[in-house]
Amino acid sequence: MSGAAETISVASPADFHVHLRQGELAKVVTPHVRQGGFSLAYVMPNLKPPITNTEQALLYRAQLQAIDPAVEYLMTLYLSPELTPEEIRKAAAAGITGVKSYPRGVTTNSEGGIESYDAYDAVFAAMEETGMVLNLHGEVPSVAETNICVLNAEPAFLPHLRKLHAKFPKLRIVLEHATTRAAVECVKSLGDTVACTITAHHLALTVDDWAGQSWNFCKPVAKYPDDRMALQEVVREGHPRFFLGSDSAPHPFQAKATASPTHACAAGLYTSPVLLPLVAHLLESFGALDKLEGFVSTHGRAFYGRRASASDRRVVLRRVSSKVVGIEGYGAGPTHVVPFWAGKAIGWELVEEREQEA
Amino acid sequence: MSGAAETISVASPADFHVHLRQGELAKVVTPHVRQGGFSLAYVMPNLKPPITNTEQALLYRAQLQAIDPAVEYLMTLYLSPELTPEEIRKAAAAGITGVKSYPRGVTTNSEGGIESYDAYDAVFAAMEETGMVLNLHGEVPSVAETNICVLNAEPAFLPHLRKLHAKFPKLRIVLEHATTRAAVECVKSLGDTVACTITAHHLALTVDDWAGQSWNFCKPVAKYPDDRMALQEVVREGHPRFFLGSDSAPHPFQAKATASPTHACAAGLYTSPVLLPLVAHLLESFGALDKLEGFVSTHGRAFYGRRASASDRRVVLRRVSSKVVGIEGYGAGPTHVVPFWAGKAIGWELVEEREQEA
Repeated sequence: MSGAAETISVASPADFHVHLRQGELAKVVTPHVRQGGFSLAYVMPNLKPPITNTEQALLYRAQLQAIDPAVEYLMTLYLSPELTPEEIRKAAAAGITGVKSYPRGVTTNSEGGIESYDAYDAVFAAMEETGMVLNLHGEVPSVAETNICVLNAEPAFLPHLRKLHAKFPKLRIVLEHATTRAAVECVKSLGDTVACTITAHHLALTVDDWAGQSWNFCKPVAKYPDDRMALQEVVREGHPRFFLGSDSAPHPFQAKATASPTHACAAGLYTSPVLLPLVAHLLESFGALDKLEGFVSTHGRAFYGRRASASDRRVVLRRVSSKVVGIEGYGAGPTHVVPFWAGKAIGWELVEEREQEA
Repeated sequence: MSGAAETISVASPADFHVHLRQGELAKVVTPHVRQGGFSLAYVMPNLKPPITNTEQALLYRAQLQAIDPAVEYLMTLYLSPELTPEEIRKAAAAGITGVKSYPRGVTTNSEGGIESYDAYDAVFAAMEETGMVLNLHGEVPSVAETNICVLNAEPAFLPHLRKLHAKFPKLRIVLEHATTRAAVECVKSLGDTVACTITAHHLALTVDDWAGQSWNFCKPVAKYPDDRMALQEVVREGHPRFFLGSDSAPHPFQAKATASPTHACAAGLYTSPVLLPLVAHLLESFGALDKLEGFVSTHGRAFYGRRASASDRRVVLRRVSSKVVGIEGYGAGPTHVVPFWAGKAIGWELVEEREQEA
């Protein structure tokens, strides 16, 4: 932090969970990482087909670098039966950072997700050995018979997290996009190898906001007001193992805006283009603006061993009375995407580098 | 019940909670009461402006009778500060059956709803005296500070129901469209003057079904699988104080299908045109088909003192292998409405009277 109350600067903001898609959509959304104020993108592997080996991940990174070379892309593999300890060692040697686990069927492109972790002991051991990070989508699939639904799918997952951590205490694990007080308390109770990402939108939303409003619908769904409060509290506390992972997930306008009796809307909120101003705005709304740099840069970078250097770009935010996010969005046709918070005001804006130098 | 397992007949089915709207939309949807197999419609008063006095209610009933004279319409007034004990006595004398209470802002056209019951003691006393029924939309408004949201708004309302019943033990009260185990248990624990309606759709849906799917979005929202199970259990039990109130609520196609970043979808599911076959289908799915007549006719009619006579029309249902509800719906433009269950199959169909006689 620097300057008067009317500007804030953050060293090298890092988004530790983002969906950059592929093809034409990737060309539209990848530049939004930097537009949203971020220097590092931790890239999810749930493409079609998913990124399951080193070669695919390196190719994907090259594609992203070709779109915007100014961002650092940390790559992940999709946990699936074809992943072997050998592939983990190869991936680690090639600079792939993590492995993402999706429970089967709970979110976008998760049809190939896992049903049990027991089969992956050798993979996790190799990850622990090579220093790779395990990124968990922490939900179990809905099962009506046992009263599991989207509202308690995350608390029901937490025993799996505890078990994994007990079995592989040196394996770095990130519980992604936590949405409940139970998850926050669980991560806090575990060792220093377990961290947790929190999205911008889960700091803003509760279930009331996505009831009948598909533009606020994502997985995991936003929960009770008390859950949101727990997320806000742990950010305000400045807990070093909690940091931003936006889970920014662009979906075409039509897929978000329109449901038919036989087809639901797409799950996912797109925050990349407005991310840093939005996070500043939200943190200020619950008295945590002084924790901004920790939340969007320092904590995550420390956990991942990617500390910002003194020479890294600092991003400057300036207070504005009220800057409304345009509802027109970006792209066109199948790449037309509209960000979260469209039509609403943000109290901060990025100061362009040229402007800073002037 | 009569005939072989392949047909069922029900005496004079009664829908004890339905929205028939006004104007052109009323002309489209009112005939669907009978099309859906029902002889009696207990009509909600949340028009624009709401039905708040006897004169308006009688006029509205005349409008509905003009559209379809073959249905018996039981009318309700909207509980609001302009309702007086005198008006209650006048309404009762004119054959108005009930008064509907909407908490402020929780559902369609509820902006004029009430915030506290304390001001209505004299009105409730007059209702008790004249035998009018109090119909409660049993939710409190969301308040983030106290963790109240659409998921716990109904349990949070139940103390108000208990208090009203304790204060007016002879006043007949119906907790409308119950959605939670807590509500079922509360109503069961109260005296014989307290009953409860259950919709068709809440016997079918959980929160997972409306997450991102506005066509399954209504208020109160469908809750946890265990809550749905409690509703199914009390129907299967054949409890006489639990009966059908469809809460069938038509909204124009565009209002259901389309959300923008700044406008949510309409809350409400439209079941009237398919109601009796759908209820039979659902009850059969959880082993309660033998309770159909009690649930859709006998229980509600007994509570309201509107017993079917021996000469009343019996509606006959016939088992079909799979009859898919059309997604094309009814009406056009602002009256284009598509029913719940569109695109899905129902295992029962109504046998037309002409066919029965042939």
